[in-house]
Amino acid sequence: MKRISLLGATGSIGTQTLDVIRKHPQHFSLESMSVGRNIDLALQQVHEFAPALLSVQSKEDYDKLIHNVPQETKVVYGTEGLVEVATTPDSDILVNAVLGSVGLSPTLAAIQAGKTIAIANKETLVTAGHIVTDAASRHNVSLIPVDSEHSAIFQALNGENINEVDRLILTASGGSFRDRSRNELKGVTVSEALNHPNWSMGAKITIDSATMMNKGLEVIEAHWLFNIPYEKIDVVLHKESIIHSMVEYIDGSVIAQLGTPDMRVPIQYALTYPERFDSISNERLHLWEIGSLHFKKLDMDRFRCMRFAYEAGKAGGTMPTVLNAANEVAVACFLEGRISFLEIEHVIEKALEEHTVINQPTLEEIIKVDAETRAFIHSTIK
Amino acid sequence: MKRISLLGATGSIGTQTLDVIRKHPQHFSLESMSVGRNIDLALQQVHEFAPALLSVQSKEDYDKLIHNVPQETKVVYGTEGLVEVATTPDSDILVNAVLGSVGLSPTLAAIQAGKTIAIANKETLVTAGHIVTDAASRHNVSLIPVDSEHSAIFQALNGENINEVDRLILTASGGSFRDRSRNELKGVTVSEALNHPNWSMGAKITIDSATMMNKGLEVIEAHWLFNIPYEKIDVVLHKESIIHSMVEYIDGSVIAQLGTPDMRVPIQYALTYPERFDSISNERLHLWEIGSLHFKKLDMDRFRCMRFAYEAGKAGGTMPTVLNAANEVAVACFLEGRISFLEIEHVIEKALEEHTVINQPTLEEIIKVDAETRAFIHSTIK
Repeated sequence: MKRISLLGATGSIGTQTLDVIRKHPQHFSLESMSVGRNIDLALQQVHEFAPALLSVQSKEDYDKLIHNVPQETKVVYGTEGLVEVATTPDSDILVNAVLGSVGLSPTLAAIQAGKTIAIANKETLVTAGHIVTDAASRHNVSLIPVDSEHSAIFQALNGENINEVDRLILTASGGSFRDRSRNELKGVTVSEALNHPNWSMGAKITIDSATMMNKGLEVIEAHWLFNIPYEKIDVVLHKESIIHSMVEYIDGSVIAQLGTPDMRVPIQYALTYPERFDSISNERLHLWEIGSLHFKKLDMDRFRCMRFAYEAGKAGGTMPTVLNAANEVAVACFLEGRISFLEIEHVIEKALEEHTVINQPTLEEIIKVDAETRAFIHSTIK
Repeated sequence: MKRISLLGATGSIGTQTLDVIRKHPQHFSLESMSVGRNIDLALQQVHEFAPALLSVQSKEDYDKLIHNVPQETKVVYGTEGLVEVATTPDSDILVNAVLGSVGLSPTLAAIQAGKTIAIANKETLVTAGHIVTDAASRHNVSLIPVDSEHSAIFQALNGENINEVDRLILTASGGSFRDRSRNELKGVTVSEALNHPNWSMGAKITIDSATMMNKGLEVIEAHWLFNIPYEKIDVVLHKESIIHSMVEYIDGSVIAQLGTPDMRVPIQYALTYPERFDSISNERLHLWEIGSLHFKKLDMDRFRCMRFAYEAGKAGGTMPTVLNAANEVAVACFLEGRISFLEIEHVIEKALEEHTVINQPTLEEIIKVDAETRAFIHSTIK
């Protein structure tokens, strides 16, 4: 029996994690969970899974909830609440599925508590990759990827020697606007941007897919998870999202992981690793039904966020922190209708240009740069 | 340093094995080799690699050669010669790249001598799979596949648990006539059949690709190598030969091995396993250059040899022996212009229909059925 703590239970990854737990009740139990503002769903989940601990975002929601949860569930709130969930004494594994760099401090706390981390919160690795991976190695804690691309690479590395890796090849669907030129991106609406062709995901990651920043963040995440230099990480456009990513070895062999686009497969693998359990879905991959798989070179002038990500990653230090914070704010502003789609790129570019990189930043420096960047973007947008 | 014995040095797999040895002289040496009738090439090879032992097919060639080889190379001939090469005391690994069921006895002798077997000679496993795999497991000897499809599966199984395998999926290019209907196969010539679109291989295997018998033999080979029931082995048409084969696991994940169609990659992997060495070729797989990969369901009415192979495999016992012997003779007759392309299928079908299966046959029974089948086909063709 693996006992699970889940950060971000009501989000897309969170609800699918609960699907996996529901499918294998003899193998998994939910010890603790955190939610954001979706209190109605949180209540349903608490009644179904009866975790010992629930954390909500605000004091206000805490006050509302406290008398509606089963007696055995303790309720907490805020950042301290997140950390309490992440470090639940009885849990074996933390699934970190919160959104944004808010996931950083609970991740570090869980690492210090010796928990295995199933990491879906890529912003944590982007913003403070060296701190998180150093801590994980010091505490001998595994970081298991949940993202379909990183899960694919993780699986393609099974039984292999990391020193014999020549290249990681991430696949990118291209997002909602993959077939549009830059000119055709002027004036696109929020709802068009939210219409991802392959994956059903949360709003932020869907916009990140449309700008290709999601893939950029994934390149940085891959760099940290697998300790591979940026020069050896490639991205290829693959609109069907069937090959989830690949590893090329020094002998020219490429190992790939394929499947139907269903996030519950990599989520389940992160929870069962190194074992595999029966499929959560009845849908199997039949390549003859799909017929053909397509691949295109990625144009960094078309997808400028991709270039920003490589440059920020290679610059290192606090530069990826700026990239991530600027992107989080810009996407939120786009979703609120305050800036246009192409302005997302512009404000990120401005933030990167303005920043003077701090090498080997401390956690405090990262938190400070993150906050400064957010303030800068807000001041730019007004 | 791995010391290699090579059966079938002048064939397609043999010469490419020597390419691999030539590329890594610090890691590999050629201890012994056998050849068929290509004595000129054999002499060149012997002078380059200076093996301690050379076996030729006929006494006649032996007499011709004996005074032309370097003094340190001993020359032998015939089936006994093959066995002497296979059991060379100083060698670590036997690369069995001979053609046809003649590879059986040297393989068994090498297993008894405790050699690791790199097996490119699929007919050996088809004709006597239970005897070869039983012997390998009794003598704790590894059978490492050389065929690109089986090497792909072998690689896709790295670090995985065989009990979590749900399905093996072999890819098939479709061979020279993949886009022709059965009607259009009437009257095709030998040279058309020898024109394989993707792979440069020997004549017999190229014809086997055109009839799809090659894939049928590979299904049986996969059954024995990986101990997977036929119901769990699928074939999918994939004309580009880029995905070399796949393994589907119980969780729905599919692991595939991809690469440019270059047999030296799986040959090298068989020799370096579990390590990987630098690529022997400068050509790397770039999926965006290929653009798209295509997949089609295999039509067993279009490719009847495929159906014969599944039926013979499931019938078991001596039935695959008959399938293989009938095919070897039929293909030889086709190459000699004595039967038409479609008659290959007809005579194989007749041989299978005529045969009464012997379950759990001994080696002697297999050799007898093999000889009887060959005689039967010759009597049918005249």
